[in-house]
Amino acid sequence: MRQAGRYMPEYRAVRERHDLLEICRTPELVVEVTLQPVRALGVDAGILFSDLLLPLAPLGIPFRFAAGEGPVVDAPVRGGDDLARLRRFDPREELRPVLDAIRLLRRELEGKVPLIGFAGAPFTLASYAVEGGRSTQFAATKAFMYSEPRAWHALAALLAEVVGDYLRAQAEAGAQALQVFDSWVGVLDAPDYREFVLPHLRTLFARAGGLVPLIHFGTGTSHLLALQREAGGDVIGIDWRIGLDEGWRAAGEDVAVQGNLEPAALLGTRERLLARVDDVLARAGGRAGHIFNLGHGILPATPVENVKAVVDHVHARTAR
Amino acid sequence: MRQAGRYMPEYRAVRERHDLLEICRTPELVVEVTLQPVRALGVDAGILFSDLLLPLAPLGIPFRFAAGEGPVVDAPVRGGDDLARLRRFDPREELRPVLDAIRLLRRELEGKVPLIGFAGAPFTLASYAVEGGRSTQFAATKAFMYSEPRAWHALAALLAEVVGDYLRAQAEAGAQALQVFDSWVGVLDAPDYREFVLPHLRTLFARAGGLVPLIHFGTGTSHLLALQREAGGDVIGIDWRIGLDEGWRAAGEDVAVQGNLEPAALLGTRERLLARVDDVLARAGGRAGHIFNLGHGILPATPVENVKAVVDHVHARTAR
Repeated sequence: MRQAGRYMPEYRAVRERHDLLEICRTPELVVEVTLQPVRALGVDAGILFSDLLLPLAPLGIPFRFAAGEGPVVDAPVRGGDDLARLRRFDPREELRPVLDAIRLLRRELEGKVPLIGFAGAPFTLASYAVEGGRSTQFAATKAFMYSEPRAWHALAALLAEVVGDYLRAQAEAGAQALQVFDSWVGVLDAPDYREFVLPHLRTLFARAGGLVPLIHFGTGTSHLLALQREAGGDVIGIDWRIGLDEGWRAAGEDVAVQGNLEPAALLGTRERLLARVDDVLARAGGRAGHIFNLGHGILPATPVENVKAVVDHVHARTAR
Repeated sequence: MRQAGRYMPEYRAVRERHDLLEICRTPELVVEVTLQPVRALGVDAGILFSDLLLPLAPLGIPFRFAAGEGPVVDAPVRGGDDLARLRRFDPREELRPVLDAIRLLRRELEGKVPLIGFAGAPFTLASYAVEGGRSTQFAATKAFMYSEPRAWHALAALLAEVVGDYLRAQAEAGAQALQVFDSWVGVLDAPDYREFVLPHLRTLFARAGGLVPLIHFGTGTSHLLALQREAGGDVIGIDWRIGLDEGWRAAGEDVAVQGNLEPAALLGTRERLLARVDDVLARAGGRAGHIFNLGHGILPATPVENVKAVVDHVHARTAR
């Protein structure tokens, strides 16, 4: 999960001087922000600070961040006719600042904690490209899939290639694990997932894999965990909606899992929060192959001291 | 599911002259809009046209609809201190236009199709009151639950009483079935549902029940179906994310179910749409106790002729 964010005063201080995309495209700023939670929280890994949407711009889908609205794609991809303006690109050229940041971060982090890179999965990236921004119903994305399936497959295949290469380039630059965020894929049922999503994730994981462990994460995917595992990844990320034990059973007990504290538990009382952390650990049962984490991204209103308390509690409870 | 909406030209024509709340509070307009889909589509029931939020205003939580933003509560309920301004009310007084509309509709519909009334469940209504409008993360709602559980229970209990009485009043006015929408409760895990939601739904169903069948619906609740059934209702509504057979098994095969066509399937090709309808019917297997419906509300971009095609197809396939 992204660790830096608006809940940290030192991150807000950087954001007062630089906008989100400026940070993502400036290696020194990526380094500074990536290190903030490593220093403040004592977590076991650094998560590259970046944005899921970065690959869209060199692909021919420019976007911007509008105040209070999140990302905006002014010319959404609504069907096959819009695919002609897309183009393959070399992430080692077009996303070089990210890779430079990874190289700098490895030097900073060496001997302390490993660095995790990430990218968005084809469905989730396509949803921004097609909807023109965030969505709750994903109506345009599904309309595209259901009315022009061949064009959808062309779009998703292109995204899978580009993102697979981008992840591989992150590993080559020094990232020691990679997370694939299919954040919004939980709005699909299993047959749609199998038809429209799974083949492209296989492409992505094949292109990205072999160098470092790959983490495969989505939210609202309680009904899709077995298929997500089939699609690829060495670790399956489980969101907070189901018990970690139940999710692990669904994904397959021979795969590693990551999760799954309810992020909003960090907004409640300390007692309730730590009881909930204990519940996640109990469901993991001390088994190898569990990576403790939140079940989704950290919320902006989260008190930093609660995050620190969770990190310390997990370390104390799992110390060998 | 609400049947009238922006996908119908005759509804858009009414909305050009009247805003949403004006329609909801004017019995003659409710009648007109409620009858539109019954006339145009040949569906098997009329669904009262109304808005989930209506009970909030007499409760002391005024709201408005902002252009493009959906509902806005200018003074959200953020904790126990805000509960003092809430008050019980008699829906037969304060929501009389809805009940008058039901009485008028029964006269119009008599001998044709039954009329279904509805209301929002406590969690879903509370989420609007606490967040101040629509939400994706429900952070303020969960923060309320986790940090002030006693105040949360007071708020949810009040909502359960008021909504239970409101539903009962709808049945007394002539509604022949009632649907309870817990649209957003799928963001909770099962232990939270059991602690913060289930007891209040039991209150609601106890107050509303005994007169007409009650339908209990939520979205994203694949992991909660057994608990939703335990909470109450004669029919469990299943969203589109899981197969109807699987959802029915989870809810219990001795309860009736409603569902569960992917609403976005109506945006795709006719062939794919009808194949998907057939899949729902095959999973129901012709069993008594299945009410064919969408798995969530109809999308604004839906072509009316596709809805009509689904109604006709289901009628042809299920004719005795």
